[in-house]
Amino acid sequence: MEQLESHACFGGTQSVWRHRSTTLDCEMNFAVYTPALAAGERLPVIWWLSGLTCSEQNFITKAGAQRYAAEHRVILVAPDTSPRGAGVADDPAYDLGQGAGFYINATEAPWAAHYRMYDYITEELPALVAAHFPVSDRASIMGHSMGGHGALTIALKNPGRYKAVSAFAPIVAPTQVPWGEKVFSAYLGADRKTWAEWDATALLEQAEERLAILIDQGAADSFLENQLKPEIFAEAAKRLGHPLTLRLQPGHDHSYYFIASFIGDHIAHHATALNA
Amino acid sequence: MEQLESHACFGGTQSVWRHRSTTLDCEMNFAVYTPALAAGERLPVIWWLSGLTCSEQNFITKAGAQRYAAEHRVILVAPDTSPRGAGVADDPAYDLGQGAGFYINATEAPWAAHYRMYDYITEELPALVAAHFPVSDRASIMGHSMGGHGALTIALKNPGRYKAVSAFAPIVAPTQVPWGEKVFSAYLGADRKTWAEWDATALLEQAEERLAILIDQGAADSFLENQLKPEIFAEAAKRLGHPLTLRLQPGHDHSYYFIASFIGDHIAHHATALNA
Repeated sequence: MEQLESHACFGGTQSVWRHRSTTLDCEMNFAVYTPALAAGERLPVIWWLSGLTCSEQNFITKAGAQRYAAEHRVILVAPDTSPRGAGVADDPAYDLGQGAGFYINATEAPWAAHYRMYDYITEELPALVAAHFPVSDRASIMGHSMGGHGALTIALKNPGRYKAVSAFAPIVAPTQVPWGEKVFSAYLGADRKTWAEWDATALLEQAEERLAILIDQGAADSFLENQLKPEIFAEAAKRLGHPLTLRLQPGHDHSYYFIASFIGDHIAHHATALNA
Repeated sequence: MEQLESHACFGGTQSVWRHRSTTLDCEMNFAVYTPALAAGERLPVIWWLSGLTCSEQNFITKAGAQRYAAEHRVILVAPDTSPRGAGVADDPAYDLGQGAGFYINATEAPWAAHYRMYDYITEELPALVAAHFPVSDRASIMGHSMGGHGALTIALKNPGRYKAVSAFAPIVAPTQVPWGEKVFSAYLGADRKTWAEWDATALLEQAEERLAILIDQGAADSFLENQLKPEIFAEAAKRLGHPLTLRLQPGHDHSYYFIASFIGDHIAHHATALNA
């Protein structure tokens, strides 16, 4: 594991690391924010999953989350969004291939060889983080857009593992919207029955755990109507009696200006659960 | 004047604009953050001047300043750092030409035709901002690195005009360090006597006004020893009895992680003076 960056930030350290991922069979970057620690102290970790086109950089440079992580004494881990590199399958479109891993395990060629972001985020990277950073055994997960889809599906597929889950403008029903239909066709193939295990709304139907979900959605988000459709998820949550707080934020778009405006609320929400 | 971006952010609006500058004879971008306003309300403005290689984007995407501007009810204006465009003189180096305007008026060819950032920041852009945004007549100024030099020199050259001034890792004595010697030779020519009017330490010697200055400097800043040398300015301030708070921040580098960590303190400092 190689350290690429280290910056003092709000009394702690924002660092960026590179390692060889055996799951993804490529070099991967990830970012970690650690507040100032007492000797031997370990802190809960919040996982942040970014959206389409993003790397580990977007969240750490634009969200302003470090202030709140320092205040609430939580560690933040921000992985990259897909396998990377010359030997990794790609596509010229922004919404397929590198930068668009969708936090699933691909089964179809040419993607299956490297695109196993679900296993990477739930197994390999947590083990690496636990081995090298002062994290406790308490974790939660959040994300934006494609990463909101990642956070919701990963939390729903792993009951008991995450103490909180939240999302900004998540893709909540990928099997029903163009972004999801495109990438699931490519990564998972034409048989739609296999798609359901990667769809937050479908997973909610079988949820064993009643983990309260917080979602913020910008009302002026240009992807709201065709790609995000939070009402699909909200209807299912209501019907199932699953606790969901969905806040439609007037005037807000899909950008990091939206995330920055509410990341403090999300980190407070997670910290309450992590420190409960 | 054309609006390039508009984002809801912390209850207000982060916008980016393009206009034709007559002073610089080119198209220029600038960014404005406006908190939520009551009808007819006008707010003080803090000018932010960025460092080498930056545009109007760096500060608004990375500093996390909007939260504090909303809290203290001040408007933030972040201009670009130099004239831009195909017809504007440039240099392949990062520290000369486009992205390196240094907030001075150039006198030498080929720079004099466009490089008049001092006039732009002190005359043309304030008039444009006053005409189009709900700013009061109270203003202050701050900046980073080259922009810290800009903020200090502009405040010192215009007594009474700015209610507060502060800087992050400023170039305080450009006539005595490589960055300044290089650009002043190019923009102002070989006669060093003409350089002094653009050097904060030299200007402090003649300061009519005792405006309190706040400077934060990262102790781990790789430019500290050769380019920034805050001790030169601190020695002059001490000798002259000029009020200066110079804080050396342990572990901090030259990045926006440093700025983000302390921008709240700076905006609070400015707001106190602006609302006095």
